[in-house]
Amino acid sequence: MKTNRRNFIRTTGLLAIASTASIESVFATSAAFPSKNKKNGLSLSFVPHELQLKHVFTLANSSRKTTPDVLTKIDFQGYTGYGEASMPPYLGESIESVIRFLSKLDLNQFTDPFQIEKIMHYVDSVDEGNCAAKAAVDIALHDLTGKIMKQPWHNIWGFDKEKTPNTSFTIGIDTPEVVRQKVAEAEPYKILKVKLGRETDKMMIETIRSVSDKPICVDVNQGWPDRSRALEMIYWLKEKGVVFVEQPLPKTAIDDNAWLTQNSPLPIIGDEAVQRLADVKKAWGVYSGINIKLMKCAGMREAHQMLTAAKALGMKVMIGCMTETSCAISAAAQLSPNADWADLDGNLLISNDPYTGMEIKQGKICLTNESGIGIDVKEKLF
Amino acid sequence: MKTNRRNFIRTTGLLAIASTASIESVFATSAAFPSKNKKNGLSLSFVPHELQLKHVFTLANSSRKTTPDVLTKIDFQGYTGYGEASMPPYLGESIESVIRFLSKLDLNQFTDPFQIEKIMHYVDSVDEGNCAAKAAVDIALHDLTGKIMKQPWHNIWGFDKEKTPNTSFTIGIDTPEVVRQKVAEAEPYKILKVKLGRETDKMMIETIRSVSDKPICVDVNQGWPDRSRALEMIYWLKEKGVVFVEQPLPKTAIDDNAWLTQNSPLPIIGDEAVQRLADVKKAWGVYSGINIKLMKCAGMREAHQMLTAAKALGMKVMIGCMTETSCAISAAAQLSPNADWADLDGNLLISNDPYTGMEIKQGKICLTNESGIGIDVKEKLF
Repeated sequence: MKTNRRNFIRTTGLLAIASTASIESVFATSAAFPSKNKKNGLSLSFVPHELQLKHVFTLANSSRKTTPDVLTKIDFQGYTGYGEASMPPYLGESIESVIRFLSKLDLNQFTDPFQIEKIMHYVDSVDEGNCAAKAAVDIALHDLTGKIMKQPWHNIWGFDKEKTPNTSFTIGIDTPEVVRQKVAEAEPYKILKVKLGRETDKMMIETIRSVSDKPICVDVNQGWPDRSRALEMIYWLKEKGVVFVEQPLPKTAIDDNAWLTQNSPLPIIGDEAVQRLADVKKAWGVYSGINIKLMKCAGMREAHQMLTAAKALGMKVMIGCMTETSCAISAAAQLSPNADWADLDGNLLISNDPYTGMEIKQGKICLTNESGIGIDVKEKLF
Repeated sequence: MKTNRRNFIRTTGLLAIASTASIESVFATSAAFPSKNKKNGLSLSFVPHELQLKHVFTLANSSRKTTPDVLTKIDFQGYTGYGEASMPPYLGESIESVIRFLSKLDLNQFTDPFQIEKIMHYVDSVDEGNCAAKAAVDIALHDLTGKIMKQPWHNIWGFDKEKTPNTSFTIGIDTPEVVRQKVAEAEPYKILKVKLGRETDKMMIETIRSVSDKPICVDVNQGWPDRSRALEMIYWLKEKGVVFVEQPLPKTAIDDNAWLTQNSPLPIIGDEAVQRLADVKKAWGVYSGINIKLMKCAGMREAHQMLTAAKALGMKVMIGCMTETSCAISAAAQLSPNADWADLDGNLLISNDPYTGMEIKQGKICLTNESGIGIDVKEKLF
């Protein structure tokens, strides 16, 4: 699907933002800092790109057919690094908030893209939250520096790219008929992921089991209110070949989550409870493992730190994603060789991916040898 | 001082090893695996190099004027990466053991130096212990890959090189007169380090305080047997301007160390208790921080993981060293921007350093922009 920028802005009501921040600044922050422009500084650009979902996406509390998204790039000395912010609505960011945040940044003050910690410290200091917007900067910086070093980040991190895990493929909550059809479509994938947390939980699992004996991982999205019933359900799920359960209880119920982890026959993975690096320490003893997502933790740098810290604590690590393009998915995939599980199917759910990158072959994540985050531009949007 | 290899072998009794493993294998493992030699594989070489100390070095339980050392290099496609194993006798490694270990390695089977995790996993699997020998491989791999990427590792890790700490400078246990002279010689350094754990502890501190009011850090090397007296001593040390105390009690006294950390007015840093990554988790709650040394933890990769994990746990980090050349010191210095303290004076203590690299300017660690670990060869030994 081709996206016409002006039409896009008009149809999504972004003119309001554009008129306050100037249309140019929607596409290039450098325009917002004309007086400071350094020829040798980093140049950040960004463009909104609403993702079209192939299927209506149903969670415990919502359903939708698009995901708001902003694509970024950083230009420096003839190199271009690409990044992305994906904003599922329940996390509180939007195209408006991301553009507002990115418009505040003056990356042009930095003349060395390798100063990622310093740059991201600055980005973090501009405002709290805005993790997807921050990730969009961090991913572009990694793509840029990886390209300068002519190496993909899985190499720079010294990972063994043969060790990439299989990715799970999400089967949305739906009628038995649609679920069976989705399971059939998921034929190439070796692990299925199911979102539970509704009255239909057992029916969903039974429906999948009626057509497939593949391992299932379960994401409850805080949907079970009671720890004893959660434990009972987990014992039932274990019998059904489920391999782990993600965020079964509300993230605020720390003692209950710790109790469940201690008593559960399956690993309990923290997702909503574990956003950034500082949460890893808090998750130890409460969860068996953590789900790292670039859009929660402000990018690849912090994700790599979280992965390292969690493994040092003996915790399981899952690399997850939002609905996002091959840009953020390929960036996340760079970390996957050292993860226990991956849920990197976000780009497969959309019909307007402007990039190619990491591929899934027979269910397994396959990293390319391309530098940086390992993507190619299929459709040039900016 | 020039080292003649043949003379060196003769004078240090290495002929015995040389005769069992063949003289060539002392200088190049590839010779030990002639049938497997791949043109495109990694080529590891090594040479013993006994370090000459400028001053006799006194610890709680020993004194010496040389340190056994083995220099390594890995050649690959026209690039050379340098490494080093330094073996202070109390850690149990020797030139003999390092050469024996390195001679067992077949790095030639690896054709991609970026597979650091895979290669180091293999190196680790060859035998337990031998951490200095393993570090000598890891450091050379980092130097090599950094050179291929044309970036120093502090850049690759995204650190801010301006944030390097001051290094402490060690004042050995000696007579008051010599101590005062050493403090005078340490004029450029902003932090002094004192090895305590003897009857002379208070005298050492008083002697230094008679001529200097610089901050002092204290390394007890497990030398205090009693936790209550240790705490009393630490209160006294705090009054004297000491900033932290390293390994005050035996490493096996875990509960006592935890009690001391909880009650101490100064941070308590684990050194002997914290060798490798797996020890970071155990140190949490027992020590306020950890002392990371490349020769203990098998190199830069694990050191970087330990640094990341310790900071994620809110622990202090010190980057320490053995008596070693500018090779291992410069490698350790790459990590120092994210450490709270550094004790990287090991190369300043020797008179036969074949390399130049990281420099201390007005007490502060100054990293170069040279690729890899940032060293140049001053005297070619192999």
